[in-house]
Amino acid sequence: WIGDASGGFLRLIDQTRLPTECVEIDCLDSAAVWNAIKRLSVRGAPAIGVAAAYGAVIGARARGTDDPKAIRTALKEASAYLRTSRPTAVNLFWALDRMEAAADDPGRAPGSPLLERLLAEAEAIAAEDRAMCRAIGRHGAELLVPGDGVLTHCNAGGLATSDYGTALAVIFSAHEQGKSVHVFADETRPLLQGARLTAWELQNRGVPVTLICDNMAAQVMKERKIQKVVVGADRIAANGDTANKIGTYGVALLARAHGIPFYVAAPSSTFDLSLADGSGIPIEERDPLEITHGFGRRTAPEGVAVYNPAFDVTPAELITGIITERGVVQPVDAETIRSLIGDSNATR
Amino acid sequence: WIGDASGGFLRLIDQTRLPTECVEIDCLDSAAVWNAIKRLSVRGAPAIGVAAAYGAVIGARARGTDDPKAIRTALKEASAYLRTSRPTAVNLFWALDRMEAAADDPGRAPGSPLLERLLAEAEAIAAEDRAMCRAIGRHGAELLVPGDGVLTHCNAGGLATSDYGTALAVIFSAHEQGKSVHVFADETRPLLQGARLTAWELQNRGVPVTLICDNMAAQVMKERKIQKVVVGADRIAANGDTANKIGTYGVALLARAHGIPFYVAAPSSTFDLSLADGSGIPIEERDPLEITHGFGRRTAPEGVAVYNPAFDVTPAELITGIITERGVVQPVDAETIRSLIGDSNATR
Repeated sequence: WIGDASGGFLRLIDQTRLPTECVEIDCLDSAAVWNAIKRLSVRGAPAIGVAAAYGAVIGARARGTDDPKAIRTALKEASAYLRTSRPTAVNLFWALDRMEAAADDPGRAPGSPLLERLLAEAEAIAAEDRAMCRAIGRHGAELLVPGDGVLTHCNAGGLATSDYGTALAVIFSAHEQGKSVHVFADETRPLLQGARLTAWELQNRGVPVTLICDNMAAQVMKERKIQKVVVGADRIAANGDTANKIGTYGVALLARAHGIPFYVAAPSSTFDLSLADGSGIPIEERDPLEITHGFGRRTAPEGVAVYNPAFDVTPAELITGIITERGVVQPVDAETIRSLIGDSNATR
Repeated sequence: WIGDASGGFLRLIDQTRLPTECVEIDCLDSAAVWNAIKRLSVRGAPAIGVAAAYGAVIGARARGTDDPKAIRTALKEASAYLRTSRPTAVNLFWALDRMEAAADDPGRAPGSPLLERLLAEAEAIAAEDRAMCRAIGRHGAELLVPGDGVLTHCNAGGLATSDYGTALAVIFSAHEQGKSVHVFADETRPLLQGARLTAWELQNRGVPVTLICDNMAAQVMKERKIQKVVVGADRIAANGDTANKIGTYGVALLARAHGIPFYVAAPSSTFDLSLADGSGIPIEERDPLEITHGFGRRTAPEGVAVYNPAFDVTPAELITGIITERGVVQPVDAETIRSLIGDSNATR
């Protein structure tokens, strides 16, 4: 966030251009934030939540007045609009719920103008996100031992959060503690977040990483190069069923077949306790062109039918533990989740 | 093959250019055949065998004389050279063994000049390959029922053989019999043979096909859209362990987890009874650039480590049956294989 509540704006790295180009996008209205989320310029459940919170601040200014009533109306409109950007990651809805609640509650900055209170709430969401990353890193690093090979899928790193990630926080934290770990990064078709973003982040921080295609994970497991799997999450139901990037469910089945522990790393804001299990999680289907023209040129025959679900749901029974900022949910079941996370989604 | 034994040459479709361009390559010397195999202009275990057989004919002419002794020497040199093109598919070695044996055995065309006998042997290998495809199609089609969703991985179609394939022969044959089947084609990273070749072949023959990324197979299985998996093979050990395109082992584990029958379709020439199990099958590792620059532009950070095995081995216990031109090996074990295939590799 650059500037103050009344004139500031949101500056994002355009993740679709990494790692070959590092281009920033300045979002001056809520449509720009909506587009950045929709187009995956900003992605990763926690980062989407933070971006949406700032987007709500920008949207709340849309009527160009200081009148609190007009600001509240504009905020509600912007929030409703931003909610339509992507369906699966619950952090989007969680953050916008918080922003709407903050508009009616002077708690965080009593006496301040409403816009400043809204910006303060968005800043608080971002700050909590940074603290969350560090706490997840600490809890998760305890699960790794020196020499571990760790497989991860998609990108749950610094680019997906306000600090250094969820799944990757576990790895970065272990690395900082001097535990030598070697990461295998699934490239993660169709949009190659693993190749473009995860490999890049790990390389930048000096963590040894080997890039593989998604379909090589089973072979690498068979060769006993993987001791742990750690992935992020986009939405976790009350029983622990976890939506994450397409391919995660397959990785979990392969880990089970090889006797490899499978961990999910996610903040409490990624839990959706309103859903009893994963069957209620909406799964986004994305443009077939991501598969047929994903690299700037056509790689499939014209007119071919394509199925492109962006997420899948891994059932709780395949998950060894869920690493949250409050500790590790283990075993993964409704009772353990309720006792650790139970009150976190109070605004929903 | 265009022309006669002494002046003819091998004409191939360059599969690396499909489906956007259909370009032919004329191989006038054994180096051209070696390159076509190495670069995957021709690929698929049976097609590699056929191409190598014709390459041996071309190589046998290298001394530019009709002297049988010089031809035999040149043949042996060309054969030794062609054997270095790719390590995994056993059909390459099987076909070259046959060509070398034919040079010493006037059986197939007694009295003819040696070069003509060699061409006749290569033509016989190609003709047997065509008959093999049809027989595999017949045997395999009996395993499918109308309405089946069939998942396949990589390309085991017409482009991988002299006729209409092994795994895809099963599907084409069922389709010709009026059994409605719907195919899900894994795109098959890194070289996208599924997207580029399998989807194209199925589309050309009017078989309904949906393209997915490799990491979507588990989700499609979970949605109960897949009733059978059918893949090809590059080498099958005496106990049924099967080397095939990287990712096949993972698909087999996913099929097992979902209770879906997993079939391999391959001719008897793909069996290597000299290997007790799959641990002895050499696995080719290919250029990291296939993963990091697979689409004409860089999709991973510079200098990242890459692991790029081109094949994996699926253990026999995950394979429901192996569809050969002689019938279906089921159960998949050394005894059943010996009784059905036992005498086919006599030249090895």
